[in-house]
Amino acid sequence: MFYIIGLGLSDEKDITLRGLEAVRSSSRLYLEAYTSILTVRKERLEEFYGKPLILADRDMVETQSDEILRDAHIQDVSLLVVGDPFGATTHTDILLRARALGIPTRVIHNASIMNAIGACGLQLYNFGQTVSLVFFTDTWRPDSFYDRVRENADLGMHTLVLLDIKVKEQSEENLARGRKIYEPPRYMSILQAVTQLAEVEDARRGGVLVPERTLAVALSRVGGGPDDERIVCGTLAQLREQPPEMFGEPLHSLVIVGRRLHHLEAEKQFSLAWRLGMNEICAETAIS
Amino acid sequence: MFYIIGLGLSDEKDITLRGLEAVRSSSRLYLEAYTSILTVRKERLEEFYGKPLILADRDMVETQSDEILRDAHIQDVSLLVVGDPFGATTHTDILLRARALGIPTRVIHNASIMNAIGACGLQLYNFGQTVSLVFFTDTWRPDSFYDRVRENADLGMHTLVLLDIKVKEQSEENLARGRKIYEPPRYMSILQAVTQLAEVEDARRGGVLVPERTLAVALSRVGGGPDDERIVCGTLAQLREQPPEMFGEPLHSLVIVGRRLHHLEAEKQFSLAWRLGMNEICAETAIS
Repeated sequence: MFYIIGLGLSDEKDITLRGLEAVRSSSRLYLEAYTSILTVRKERLEEFYGKPLILADRDMVETQSDEILRDAHIQDVSLLVVGDPFGATTHTDILLRARALGIPTRVIHNASIMNAIGACGLQLYNFGQTVSLVFFTDTWRPDSFYDRVRENADLGMHTLVLLDIKVKEQSEENLARGRKIYEPPRYMSILQAVTQLAEVEDARRGGVLVPERTLAVALSRVGGGPDDERIVCGTLAQLREQPPEMFGEPLHSLVIVGRRLHHLEAEKQFSLAWRLGMNEICAETAIS
Repeated sequence: MFYIIGLGLSDEKDITLRGLEAVRSSSRLYLEAYTSILTVRKERLEEFYGKPLILADRDMVETQSDEILRDAHIQDVSLLVVGDPFGATTHTDILLRARALGIPTRVIHNASIMNAIGACGLQLYNFGQTVSLVFFTDTWRPDSFYDRVRENADLGMHTLVLLDIKVKEQSEENLARGRKIYEPPRYMSILQAVTQLAEVEDARRGGVLVPERTLAVALSRVGGGPDDERIVCGTLAQLREQPPEMFGEPLHSLVIVGRRLHHLEAEKQFSLAWRLGMNEICAETAIS
């Protein structure tokens, strides 16, 4: 059997019992580690499982799926992914490849940011399409997400903005020279995201992401428990003015709040962020 | 500590290790059992946990939250919910009530239909707002969901349609007479859903849910494993013509497919449904 197992959002204890059973029965375990991260390292998972993990980077999952699937028709093999297996397209690809090879498959679901974002107090029903915000470079500043946010905003829907992470990236020079030297991992912060959004609003002038007016919720380490998780709401400008430590450790996510926010929901959002001491900000802006 | 623990989608093994730890440390366990169901009964969970469960119906969660939260500042109390704690509004309410009482809280996330729906092969990014379809009665046939599906469809987005369940409902007569006699639980099937959608299209004539043209994916017991889970795609008319056993046991869900379905995704959807022998249907309709 080939398993794809969602690990959930935080640490080694977020796996399900069904997932852990599959881990224990597997001859080989691959850990996919490029679309998201847990708050614990590979070694901690290995210790917890009592088994070694093979790191599967983007290249491996995309081009060496037959090696990952080797012998999975006669023994159990598992691919472990952060969040849920259907957050990223590539997991569908390897699942289809397994089926084409006649290998039985099973997906073991878990929480992902796509549903755990409900922790901010906004109803999941009222979210529109999700967008990604990538690290801008000197030459690459894609802003098509702006049109998606506007489509959602026009209908009053909220938008989940997934913030870029860069794991195992090569510098242009190392890439050009074929040197397998990798940059340290980078995770986009709320502050960087809000700065980029302001830049795009400046260029597009569509009134969709106006710093002084657009309400957003910043989330850090959703599902990480009271010590780790942060939920902060305010206008984009207010979020930008906060000290970096306000938002805690990565991963960060951002929600652009749509106007389909009835009074009750606004109060809840206010309350959910209250413990961070930003109640004045939320009280002023959420119910407007 | 007051815990709200997501149980995931299928059976007793879908709880996370963190969730099970909280169950074990809790003095009282409440099982919320009205917005969704697992495939196993309360007794199976009790045996598995080695502890009794108190059933919490809608009335109890909404009006007796202080009883649920009793002594949670000095001992652990858990509310177990199917899926993820933030699928339904009421869990936010009780969480806020706990905070108002100064009780520490922790949410333990899990998969819900809102993210596990990715199992159908469509990218979660391209889903718009979610709608609910209730059982039509002689006097109550709400169709405002139609406008929401149209909003999504206009932008090319997919729509997740959550199908009604009725648990612990009273007949009008029993309700009027104050008799606490409850009807057997009912779960809306794909066939009933598709029939209701056709009726609304007939009345509204917006071209949004045209039986012969609109492509949909029917899902049963998402996350239930190869023996239980069914994923079937076709036009609404094709789904309506299938024998009921095609769709397996409840719960059922339906996705109205938007046009933002590039060729690759269509192929995947086709492949994901292939094992049900409906490949001809999908091949004809998905890539059009």
